[in-house]
Amino acid sequence: MSQPKVGIIMGSNSDLPVMQAAADILKHFEIPYEIDIVSAHRTPEKMFEYAKNAHLRGLQVIIAGAGGAAHLPGMVASLTPLPVIGVPVKSSNSIDGWDSLLSIVQMPNGVPVATVAVNASQNAGILAAQIIASPNIDALNKISEYKNMLKEKVMTASSEILKKEG
Amino acid sequence: MSQPKVGIIMGSNSDLPVMQAAADILKHFEIPYEIDIVSAHRTPEKMFEYAKNAHLRGLQVIIAGAGGAAHLPGMVASLTPLPVIGVPVKSSNSIDGWDSLLSIVQMPNGVPVATVAVNASQNAGILAAQIIASPNIDALNKISEYKNMLKEKVMTASSEILKKEG
Amino acid sequence: MSQPKVGIIMGSNSDLPVMQAAADILKHFEIPYEIDIVSAHRTPEKMFEYAKNAHLRGLQVIIAGAGGAAHLPGMVASLTPLPVIGVPVKSSNSIDGWDSLLSIVQMPNGVPVATVAVNASQNAGILAAQIIASPNIDALNKISEYKNMLKEKVMTASSEILKKEG
Amino acid sequence: MSQPKVGIIMGSNSDLPVMQAAADILKHFEIPYEIDIVSAHRTPEKMFEYAKNAHLRGLQVIIAGAGGAAHLPGMVASLTPLPVIGVPVKSSNSIDGWDSLLSIVQMPNGVPVATVAVNASQNAGILAAQIIASPNIDALNKISEYKNMLKEKVMTASSEILKKEG
Amino acid sequence: MSQPKVGIIMGSNSDLPVMQAAADILKHFEIPYEIDIVSAHRTPEKMFEYAKNAHLRGLQVIIAGAGGAAHLPGMVASLTPLPVIGVPVKSSNSIDGWDSLLSIVQMPNGVPVATVAVNASQNAGILAAQIIASPNIDALNKISEYKNMLKEKVMTASSEILKKEG
Amino acid sequence: MSQPKVGIIMGSNSDLPVMQAAADILKHFEIPYEIDIVSAHRTPEKMFEYAKNAHLRGLQVIIAGAGGAAHLPGMVASLTPLPVIGVPVKSSNSIDGWDSLLSIVQMPNGVPVATVAVNASQNAGILAAQIIASPNIDALNKISEYKNMLKEKVMTASSEILKKEG
Amino acid sequence: MSQPKVGIIMGSNSDLPVMQAAADILKHFEIPYEIDIVSAHRTPEKMFEYAKNAHLRGLQVIIAGAGGAAHLPGMVASLTPLPVIGVPVKSSNSIDGWDSLLSIVQMPNGVPVATVAVNASQNAGILAAQIIASPNIDALNKISEYKNMLKEKVMTASSEILKKEG
Amino acid sequence: MSQPKVGIIMGSNSDLPVMQAAADILKHFEIPYEIDIVSAHRTPEKMFEYAKNAHLRGLQVIIAGAGGAAHLPGMVASLTPLPVIGVPVKSSNSIDGWDSLLSIVQMPNGVPVATVAVNASQNAGILAAQIIASPNIDALNKISEYKNMLKEKVMTASSEILKKEG
Repeated sequence: MSQPKVGIIMGSNSDLPVMQAAADILKHFEIPYEIDIVSAHRTPEKMFEYAKNAHLRGLQVIIAGAGGAAHLPGMVASLTPLPVIGVPVKSSNSIDGWDSLLSIVQMPNGVPVATVAVNASQNAGILAAQIIASPNIDALNKISEYKNMLKEKVMTASSEILKKEG
Repeated sequence: MSQPKVGIIMGSNSDLPVMQAAADILKHFEIPYEIDIVSAHRTPEKMFEYAKNAHLRGLQVIIAGAGGAAHLPGMVASLTPLPVIGVPVKSSNSIDGWDSLLSIVQMPNGVPVATVAVNASQNAGILAAQIIASPNIDALNKISEYKNMLKEKVMTASSEILKKEG
Repeated sequence: MSQPKVGIIMGSNSDLPVMQAAADILKHFEIPYEIDIVSAHRTPEKMFEYAKNAHLRGLQVIIAGAGGAAHLPGMVASLTPLPVIGVPVKSSNSIDGWDSLLSIVQMPNGVPVATVAVNASQNAGILAAQIIASPNIDALNKISEYKNMLKEKVMTASSEILKKEG
Repeated sequence: MSQPKVGIIMGSNSDLPVMQAAADILKHFEIPYEIDIVSAHRTPEKMFEYAKNAHLRGLQVIIAGAGGAAHLPGMVASLTPLPVIGVPVKSSNSIDGWDSLLSIVQMPNGVPVATVAVNASQNAGILAAQIIASPNIDALNKISEYKNMLKEKVMTASSEILKKEG
Repeated sequence: MSQPKVGIIMGSNSDLPVMQAAADILKHFEIPYEIDIVSAHRTPEKMFEYAKNAHLRGLQVIIAGAGGAAHLPGMVASLTPLPVIGVPVKSSNSIDGWDSLLSIVQMPNGVPVATVAVNASQNAGILAAQIIASPNIDALNKISEYKNMLKEKVMTASSEILKKEG
Repeated sequence: MSQPKVGIIMGSNSDLPVMQAAADILKHFEIPYEIDIVSAHRTPEKMFEYAKNAHLRGLQVIIAGAGGAAHLPGMVASLTPLPVIGVPVKSSNSIDGWDSLLSIVQMPNGVPVATVAVNASQNAGILAAQIIASPNIDALNKISEYKNMLKEKVMTASSEILKKEG
Repeated sequence: MSQPKVGIIMGSNSDLPVMQAAADILKHFEIPYEIDIVSAHRTPEKMFEYAKNAHLRGLQVIIAGAGGAAHLPGMVASLTPLPVIGVPVKSSNSIDGWDSLLSIVQMPNGVPVATVAVNASQNAGILAAQIIASPNIDALNKISEYKNMLKEKVMTASSEILKKEG
Repeated sequence: MSQPKVGIIMGSNSDLPVMQAAADILKHFEIPYEIDIVSAHRTPEKMFEYAKNAHLRGLQVIIAGAGGAAHLPGMVASLTPLPVIGVPVKSSNSIDGWDSLLSIVQMPNGVPVATVAVNASQNAGILAAQIIASPNIDALNKISEYKNMLKEKVMTASSEILKKEG
C-alpha cells in the first residue's frame, strides 16, 4: 500500500470490530490508510509520538475511536495540526455511549474534534474521504457517486415495498 | 474578499451571536468565507440550492449551526459531497442543548456530520481551517502557531498564579 | 385500494417492522393508505417531491418514522401544509431512542411535528384516523368503538384476575 | 365568536403565558377556539365532562398543556375520540421539561397524544390549524401562505446579513 | 379473605409479574388486600369509580403500578383522600423506566404520590404495611422483625464470605 | 403544641426554605409536628438516635429532605419501622435535582422511601396527613375538603379566564 | 494473611462478582485486605461499627461498592477519617448505573467519596494501592511497573495489528 | 512554604474560583501544596512533564480540576503512579456538568481517577488530606476533629431551629 493519508487509531483492540468499518470504507475510496492501537491512558508516550509526527509522515486526517472516558481523540487533537475525527465507542464499560460521546465532542475552544455518531466508524471513514476530496472536484464526484449508490439502495427497497403493497 | 472557501450558515439570525466566532477565526487564518441564513425548515428550497451548488461554487467546507431539532447540518450533508461541520446551538427552545447535539451528531451511515461541542462555533472555524490546511505543510504550520499562541496564554496564566502563590 | 388518504413513509426498510403497525391500524379503520421508503438523508430529492405533492395527490395526513438523528418527519413537515405525525424509531444506531425522540419533537416555531411515543407506530395510525375523523361524528364514533374494544380487553383481564384471586 | 373548533385547556393559570400563543395563532387562521383551565389532578370531574363532551359540542381538536407529571393531555385523549395535541410546559416544578415531555409523549398503545416541543404552544396551534385544514385544499393553501411568510422573514434576514458582510 | 385494607391496581395485565411482589409481601404481613386491572387510559370510568369509592369500601392504602406515560397513580391520587403508592414499571414501551418514574413522582402541589423505585412493588407492599402499622406499636414491631430478618440474611452472607476468605 | 405525630428533618439549615412548606401544611391540618436538622453525613449518631427512637416517642411518620447524594431519607428508613417520606431537594450542589431524586427513590428491596417530587415538601406534608388520616373516615374527609379547596381555586381561575375571553 | 490494610465491603453478596476484582488486584500488589458484606440499609449498626473502628484496627483505605440508591460508601465516609473509595455497581435494580453513580459521587462538602467508574472495582483496588504507596517511592515504582505491564499489552496488540495489516 | 505534598492543577485560570477551596482546606490541615495552570489540551507537554515528575519532586497526591471534555485528571493519572483526585468543573461550556463528570469518572481499567462531586474542590482537598493522613493515627485524628467541627455546626443549627419552633 502506498503512503497512508489517513491514520486510524483506537484505544484498545477490543475497539477493532467497531473501527474496522472506517478502514473498509477508505479501501472503497482507494485512500491509503494505516491502522494501529494507541491508548491515551496506557501508552501516552506512543500517543504523543504518533500525534506529534502524523502530519510530518504525510497523514492528512486522523480517525480516533475510544470508549468510556474517551480521551484519545481530544489528546491527539491537542498535539497535531491535522483534523481529527472522533468515534465514540459504546464499549462494555460505557454508560450506553453517553460518556464516550460527551468526552469526545465537548472539547474546549482551540482544540476541536470532528465527532461522529456513537459507533459510526463508517461515517468517520466517509468524513475522512470528504476532507481529502474537498479541494478536488473529481474526488468530490466519487463521494457523490457513493451517495448515489446509497440512494439506489433506498430506491430499490422502495420499489420492493411498493410492489408488495401494490 | 476573494472566492469563499468556507460557507457558514445558520437556521436563524438569532443564531448569529453564537456563530460569529466561526467567521472571526476564519478571518484570523485569512481563509475567505461567506455567511448566510439558511433554514432547513423555513427555506428548504434555498437550503437545497445552497447545498447542491456549494462545491461547484468553490466552497471546500460548510459550517452549519442550528438549535433544537437541528436538521440543517444533516440535510446539507445529505446534499453535498463536501465535509459539513455541525454546531449544536443551545437556543432558547432547546432542552439544555441535548436536542441540538443529538439531532446533529447521531447521523445515519453514509451521511456524516463533523460535530463540535454545543455552541462551539469557534472550534468549527478552526476545524474548517484544519481541513483546508490538511494537504499543505505550510498551512498546517499556521495551525500549529495558533495552538502555540493558546499555549502561551496558559503559560502566562501559570506564571501569574505561581507568582501570586509564591 | 382506493385513493390513499394517509402516506406512511420511513427512512429505511429496517424501520418496516416497527412501522407496519401504522398500516395495520389504518386497515382496521378502512382508511386507504400508501407506504413507501423515503430517506431524508439518502433520497432528499424524492423526499422533496413526496412532501411537496402529497396534498395535491389527495393525502390528508403523513406518518413519518425515523431513527437516530431523525430528520424525515421534520423535513417533510417543512415542505407540506398537511399535518405530519412523527414516529421516533429506536433503531440499532439510536441511543435508547433519546436521539430519535428529540430530533422529531423539538421542532422550531412554525413547523410542528405531531410526535408519538418511541416505536409507537400503532398510535401514529390511530392519530391519523382521529385527524381524518375529526370533522365527522360517524367517523368519530368508530374511534370511540375502538377505544371501547380496548376497554373490553382490560375488563376481561380484570375479571380473570379477580376470579383467580377470588 | 362563532362555534369553537379548537379547545385550548391547561392545568393551571400559571400555564397561560405559555399557552396564549396557541390562541394567537388560531386567531391568525381565523379558526374559532375556546380557552379554559382544566386540571387533571385538581378538577378531575370537570376534565371528564370536558373531554367526554368535546366532540358533541363541535370541537374538532383539543390542545392541552401541562407541566411536571403532565397527565392532562393523556387523560383527555383517553376520554375523547378527537385528536389531542399535548404541549409539555416547562413549569417551575419541572425538571427542565423532561418530566413534562415524557409524561405526555410516551402514551400507551391505543391512546395517542400528538406531542409538540417543550413550551411550543404556537406549534400546537399551527398543528390544530393543519388538522382542520387537512381535507380542504383552500385551507391548506392558507397554511402554505403562513409558511411562505416564515420563509420571507428568513430571506429578509439573509439579505441583511449578506449586505452587512458584503 | 377478610375486608381488604390495601388495593393493588395496575394498568395492564402485563404489569402483573412486576406487581405480584406487592401482594406477596402483604400476605406475609397478613394484611388483607385486593388486586385488579384498572387502566387510566383504557378504563377511565372504572378508574374514577375505583378511586372515588376506595376509602368508602374500607381501603386504607392504594398501590398503583404503571409504565411509560404512567398516569394511573397520579389520577387515582387526585380522586381519593387515601395515600397512594406509585410503582414505576419498566415496561417494554418505556425508555428505561425514566418516563414511568417521572410521570409518577413529579406530581403537582396538592396531589402527592408516594413513589418507590422502578419495578419495586415489593417495597410498595412494605410501605403499605408501614402506613397501616404506623399508629400501632405492635404492628410496627412486626415491621421491625421483618427488617431483622433481612439483617440476618446479610449476616449469614457475611459469615460465609468471611469463612471462604478465612 | 401537643405530642408530635410527624417529624420533619433535613440535612442542613439551607434546606429550611424548601422544607418549611411541609410544616405549614401540617399546621393547616392541625397535626402536631416537630422540625429539626439531622445530617446523615455530619451527625450520623444523632440520625441513628433520632431514627431508632422516633416510633417510641410517638411519631407516626417521618419526613426527610436532602439534596445531592441524599442519604438521609434512606438511612432513616433503614432504622425505623415508620413510613418515611423523602423530599429530593434541588440544592446548589445538585445536578438539577437528578442526584437528589435518584438517591432517594431508588432504594433496595426491604427499605422503601415514599418519594415525592423535587422540592415538593408541601406534598410531603399532605402525604403525611393522608397516612395519619387513612384509618379514620373523618380525618379523610378533611383531606377531601382540602382537595375541594384546590378545585375551587381552579374553578375561580377558569371563571376569570372565560369572562376575559368571553 | 497479615493485618489487612484495605477493607472491601459491599451492600449485598450479589455485588461480589463485581467487587472481586478489587481483591484480586490487591493480591497482585501483595497488600493485605479483608472482604465483607456490610449493608447500609439492612445492617446499619454493623456498618456503624465497621466504619467507626476501621482505622483503629489498622485499615488505611476502605473500598465500598453498592448499587441503586447507593448509600454505603457515603455513610461509611461520614463515620471514618480514612479515605473511602466508592464503586457504583450496576445492579439489576439500577437505572443503567446512573442512580448508583450519582448517589456515590455527589457527596456534600466535608465528606468526600473517591468515586471510580461504574463497576470499576479493579480500579478501586489500584487506587487503594496508589494511596498506600503514595508516601513510598519503592511502592510507587511497583505501581509504575503495573502500568508498564498494561502498556506492554497494548504494544503487543499494536504489533499484531500492524503485522496483520502489513 | 515547605516541600509541597499536594499538587493542585486546573485546565484554565477560569477554573480558579472553583479550585481555590482545595487550597484553602489544605491550608487548614497545614499540608503544604502547590497550585498551577496545566492544560491537557493547550499545554500537553507541560502536563507530561508535570505528571511524570510529580512523585519524584515529593508530591503524594495530585488534584486536577477541569470542565467539559475534561481530560486533565485522566491523562495525569495515566502518567503518574500517584493517586489523582479529579474535580469535574461546571464551566460555561459544560452541559450542566454531565460532560465534566463522565469524562473524569468513567476511566478504563488500570487508570483510576478518584472523582468527587461537580465543583467539589473542597472535598478534593479533604480527600487529599485523608490520603496523606491514612497511615498516621495522629493525622487521622485531625480529620476526625474537622468532622466534629462540621457536626458542631449542625448541632448549633439544630438548637436554633428547636428554640425558634419552641
